Amino acid sequence: VSIALFSRNPHSATLQRFHGELARHLGEPVAIWPDLDPETVRIAIVNDAPDGALKACPKLDLIACAWAGVDRLYADPSVPIGPVVTRLIDPSLTQAMTETILAHVLAAHADWPFYAAEQAHGRWTKRKRPFAADVNVLICGFGVLAKPTAVHLRAIGFQVRGWARDARLEDGFEVSAGRAGLLAELARADIVVAVLPNTAASHHLFDADAFAAMKAGAAFINVGRGQVVDDAALLASLAADKPRRAILDVFHVEPLPPEHGFWQHPKVSIFPHVAAPTAADSPAQSIADVIRRFRAGEPLPEAVDRGRGY
Amino acid sequence: VSIALFSRNPHSATLQRFHGELARHLGEPVAIWPDLDPETVRIAIVNDAPDGALKACPKLDLIACAWAGVDRLYADPSVPIGPVVTRLIDPSLTQAMTETILAHVLAAHADWPFYAAEQAHGRWTKRKRPFAADVNVLICGFGVLAKPTAVHLRAIGFQVRGWARDARLEDGFEVSAGRAGLLAELARADIVVAVLPNTAASHHLFDADAFAAMKAGAAFINVGRGQVVDDAALLASLAADKPRRAILDVFHVEPLPPEHGFWQHPKVSIFPHVAAPTAADSPAQSIADVIRRFRAGEPLPEAVDRGRGY
Repeated sequence: VSIALFSRNPHSATLQRFHGELARHLGEPVAIWPDLDPETVRIAIVNDAPDGALKACPKLDLIACAWAGVDRLYADPSVPIGPVVTRLIDPSLTQAMTETILAHVLAAHADWPFYAAEQAHGRWTKRKRPFAADVNVLICGFGVLAKPTAVHLRAIGFQVRGWARDARLEDGFEVSAGRAGLLAELARADIVVAVLPNTAASHHLFDADAFAAMKAGAAFINVGRGQVVDDAALLASLAADKPRRAILDVFHVEPLPPEHGFWQHPKVSIFPHVAAPTAADSPAQSIADVIRRFRAGEPLPEAVDRGRGY
Repeated sequence: VSIALFSRNPHSATLQRFHGELARHLGEPVAIWPDLDPETVRIAIVNDAPDGALKACPKLDLIACAWAGVDRLYADPSVPIGPVVTRLIDPSLTQAMTETILAHVLAAHADWPFYAAEQAHGRWTKRKRPFAADVNVLICGFGVLAKPTAVHLRAIGFQVRGWARDARLEDGFEVSAGRAGLLAELARADIVVAVLPNTAASHHLFDADAFAAMKAGAAFINVGRGQVVDDAALLASLAADKPRRAILDVFHVEPLPPEHGFWQHPKVSIFPHVAAPTAADSPAQSIADVIRRFRAGEPLPEAVDRGRGY
């Protein structure tokens, strides 16, 4: 057996189902840690792997992360640097993320939290809202996860721009880069969406300066990783309506601790990391494809650069 | 002067601006009620016309309603039956309605009210949600106002069907009709959107039987007219989660009276008739086009059948 599955929950029903699907798609047996001989493992499929488990495998050629985030993999300093690393951006993950981001952008646009608060006070208060054509949406992290959202939002009528590692014009979307680019984009955006991985470069990207650069009255949506936000800076900046509303699905510590200031803040909407539900079956097919491609020497579209962090 | 504008608020800034735009587009003077000679008026543009005002004009050829709803026009029994009646479905109205319906459907899909309630209790509770591909959206009133919404929802991945006066297959959307058709559709829909005009046929269309026919756990969204809902039946049916959530933008009486049971109901989200904000400038161009077409003897796309009521 040269393929093995590493997880902190080797006996969970989800993992067992995933294992069955994967073995079926590959047409060969797949071991599950810790029930394996480390000397034989060439390909590791990881889903929140136990610390030190990969280090024990001397012949690893490929580490395939069965989910978008590789930050948990690199949190273990003992992970060997030799093997190729890929992450899986499953189509079902992109679809779920698309549905969630669209929901949050449109709920912010239609002022859901405002009207809910007015209803709680028994008040019939109409608030004027702009047409989508006059609303600038900035998507920070303009990659494969966020791109379909940008396309839908543009079709609905929104003005959509991106911010990413590399500046470019992509399918008519202007994508800027760099710290100065971010601050300039934040000054014009009415709705800011963060779909960023947790890396050294993205850590506390949204700090006091970033929030201060925002347009007063903007909405801020974070569905990527909690580490990109300086929570204290966000809490302080909400008083200035920069942003007017924070819609947060991810946090530094999850579940969000009961004493955290976000819980009771009237300008914060909390979602318990539900932007993209785990679909156990769909990744099996995609992981099997990655392994086939790797063995055939074909390029891997989602190869990870450890220095970059994603 | 053969063209006149009728409104209960002849001195409002919005009406005055609309009047100026209209006269500019038409290139001829437009009178404003009551400052006119009723004998000379051939074309009446109405925006919530005062009762009896049209009856006083014996030479009317055309009544052009400057907004989608003609129910307020027909609420005045003295309105003459001779003139052609048109309503204006302005592109900006359709766009605003599209943005609003998308927001409500997606907010219901992403369980906004559930997570807001959980946050209020300080609870971190994940709820599994289906993918859009497994969610049936039923749009009741599959006309020009609702059609773009259907197209966007299908592009995002939802299953979309319609219910209307005439059964048909329209651009791949199955549209059913009739009472039996409605009850059958309600039994399979996860999200029901009502975008219906207020007519004799639509009055209390959503009654106890209709709500009983719904799938338990469905969401019900009404952005058309409050009269299509039997409020007491809805309140009674919410206990059975049919629907689980009602998102209401329109009501029998507006503003919704303080004592109404909707205000404090935990399963009802109230919006104060803000689905489609009034855009004063855009309708002027469209109304001017209608008048030009009428004078040239060309067909009017939005002519109203008084018997049908829209």
